[in-house]
Amino acid sequence: MVAAQNIFVAVVGVGGVGKAFLGQLQHLQKQLQSRRTPITLSLVLVRRSNAQLFSQDFKPITIANALNELAQSQGEVQPLTATIDALAKAPGRVVLVDNTSSQDLANEYPSILKNGISIVTPNKKAFSYNYELWTDIFAAAANGTGSPDGGYVFHESTVGAGLPVLSTLHELINTGDRVTKVEGVFSGTMSFLFNSFMPVGGGGGKFAAEVKKAKDLGYTEPDPRDDLNGLDVARKLTILARIAGLKVQSPTSFPVRSLIPKELEQCTSGDEFLERLPQFDDQMDKLKQEAAAEGKVVRFVGSIDVAKQEVKVGLEKFDASHPIAALKGSDNIINFYTERYGSNPLIIQGAGAGGEVTAMGVTGDLLKVIRSLKSS
Amino acid sequence: MVAAQNIFVAVVGVGGVGKAFLGQLQHLQKQLQSRRTPITLSLVLVRRSNAQLFSQDFKPITIANALNELAQSQGEVQPLTATIDALAKAPGRVVLVDNTSSQDLANEYPSILKNGISIVTPNKKAFSYNYELWTDIFAAAANGTGSPDGGYVFHESTVGAGLPVLSTLHELINTGDRVTKVEGVFSGTMSFLFNSFMPVGGGGGKFAAEVKKAKDLGYTEPDPRDDLNGLDVARKLTILARIAGLKVQSPTSFPVRSLIPKELEQCTSGDEFLERLPQFDDQMDKLKQEAAAEGKVVRFVGSIDVAKQEVKVGLEKFDASHPIAALKGSDNIINFYTERYGSNPLIIQGAGAGGEVTAMGVTGDLLKVIRSLKSS
Repeated sequence: MVAAQNIFVAVVGVGGVGKAFLGQLQHLQKQLQSRRTPITLSLVLVRRSNAQLFSQDFKPITIANALNELAQSQGEVQPLTATIDALAKAPGRVVLVDNTSSQDLANEYPSILKNGISIVTPNKKAFSYNYELWTDIFAAAANGTGSPDGGYVFHESTVGAGLPVLSTLHELINTGDRVTKVEGVFSGTMSFLFNSFMPVGGGGGKFAAEVKKAKDLGYTEPDPRDDLNGLDVARKLTILARIAGLKVQSPTSFPVRSLIPKELEQCTSGDEFLERLPQFDDQMDKLKQEAAAEGKVVRFVGSIDVAKQEVKVGLEKFDASHPIAALKGSDNIINFYTERYGSNPLIIQGAGAGGEVTAMGVTGDLLKVIRSLKSS
Repeated sequence: MVAAQNIFVAVVGVGGVGKAFLGQLQHLQKQLQSRRTPITLSLVLVRRSNAQLFSQDFKPITIANALNELAQSQGEVQPLTATIDALAKAPGRVVLVDNTSSQDLANEYPSILKNGISIVTPNKKAFSYNYELWTDIFAAAANGTGSPDGGYVFHESTVGAGLPVLSTLHELINTGDRVTKVEGVFSGTMSFLFNSFMPVGGGGGKFAAEVKKAKDLGYTEPDPRDDLNGLDVARKLTILARIAGLKVQSPTSFPVRSLIPKELEQCTSGDEFLERLPQFDDQMDKLKQEAAAEGKVVRFVGSIDVAKQEVKVGLEKFDASHPIAALKGSDNIINFYTERYGSNPLIIQGAGAGGEVTAMGVTGDLLKVIRSLKSS
């Protein structure tokens, strides 16, 4: 048995997810080191947009000190492509942990994988951009259609954060089930917003006020329009649909309902938008009343009808007893309808956003890479 | 890269799960054969209690014909241990698929694993018998605490059939989350029974009549006492608790509520039991009324309090809005409460019994073994 005992870890992006990941990496490092056949995880790169800490001689950086050292690092930052070229020369297998949402870095994935570097990431851009990038990535990856010499790529956290969404979809397909439909609430923000706007059993506030509340509680992006335009959900649907076998060109190639009223598309700031949004409360109240008249509630959902090859993101009505209606707080819920599971879907539910749970998906993916590399 | 291209598959048990597994194996065989780096799955053994088809020269048995050939096979059946000794001499890695619920075979797992044979199975006996067998199994397995030369062992289908229950618990633990509590409905029979006996919103029949109905619909074991004694749920709880780190001695070493009235414990047949059960409907109605008075419903659940090291199986009351109350049909639901997920648990829900979904868990485990063996 040929065992790769030393695996080099390069972390790009140290925001909420990146910081949580470093904490989890520290735990994993100890755990793997204490195995009967130890595996050494060596952190060799920590990088953010304006600074990087790179161990050019591949001696491990102490994880606990990494962020402090990064904060103190000075001087010009090497272009990322140059750093990646240097990483490819590591005396062992390298895993790049991309905790950014950078499209530029995403575009480099095929060449990174071809260099034998593996990638684990919550970066949705790589997998929801044009279909060509998707095929290029998996043609270059060892776990794709591709090259056995390429790196491995896993991206569980791109949908539902740490919830086992992509792994479950892959397993359904790989074991020969026929997935007929995927439907769910894929955004913590939209979940919170509609669970507050129209809770089961009645009540709830005006829509604009609920948006303001969600923003104040930190449930939205700094500019809430980045949630309300539906693009984040559309990106996740693109990823799921592609795994399910649909050749979805991009997150804008299917119907996506934006909750930004046409008249407010020209607002120059999030603040102006929030100020004018109450003018449209009547429209949202009308939707609410229509649903209530049918004994239903309104939710912002994404759905994929695999047979009809239809993907869409928008408002749908659900019976109060439906699991999608009964969702709590900012939880996500994903329903997989398949031939085997019949009329009652396989359901995964829980927090779909937040630093720790997103990092958990990334750490879990790192474990998958380690298992795959272990003996290759 | 050293690749084991040929993997030998030995199937023991060809009931509902075994038959469904053979169908899925056929699909997987085609899929792996058409890969850029093909992997050949060779079926070399199909065995049931009174007959076996064993390809002593390890030439593959055609999966589509296996059951017919098995039905026509004649003569005395070799003891299983002798067959396993012969399997250990295969010119490549062997995976034993144990689709039985045999304790005898379960007891052989440590020695089978030591022989380098991997095991995938829905057989709960192996993992819920005494704690010594549990430690022996994982000390012998390559993915346990154990020997790198041992076989791999996976048993996803022992809890929740094909639902990703064990893999999720492992991932939470391996990525460093702290699981505080696991709670759920772990039996399709109990789920159906209580969802019919006390549906959310009122109604439902007498308990004994619902048991009879469940039996007539095929939701219970041939003798419904085998469901009502709670042992099946206790076995599943034992497995989950052990993964969560509790040293549970056996499924009878913690409180398990049996729904078989004391007075009926001496019934000599399931029929006699069913005939006398209506005498105890008043007791069950009383439970129902007590719960209804609190605006709640009664469900048969298992729970593990990790911090308190408490495991129990029994009747609990839940608010109508609780996901456990809202369960439908014969679905299972498993709630993982963890430090990262906070007050809203990570929930997995769906069919937890049935040939196809149970076999799916087994086939998924076979894929895990293949990935692990691929390059070793």
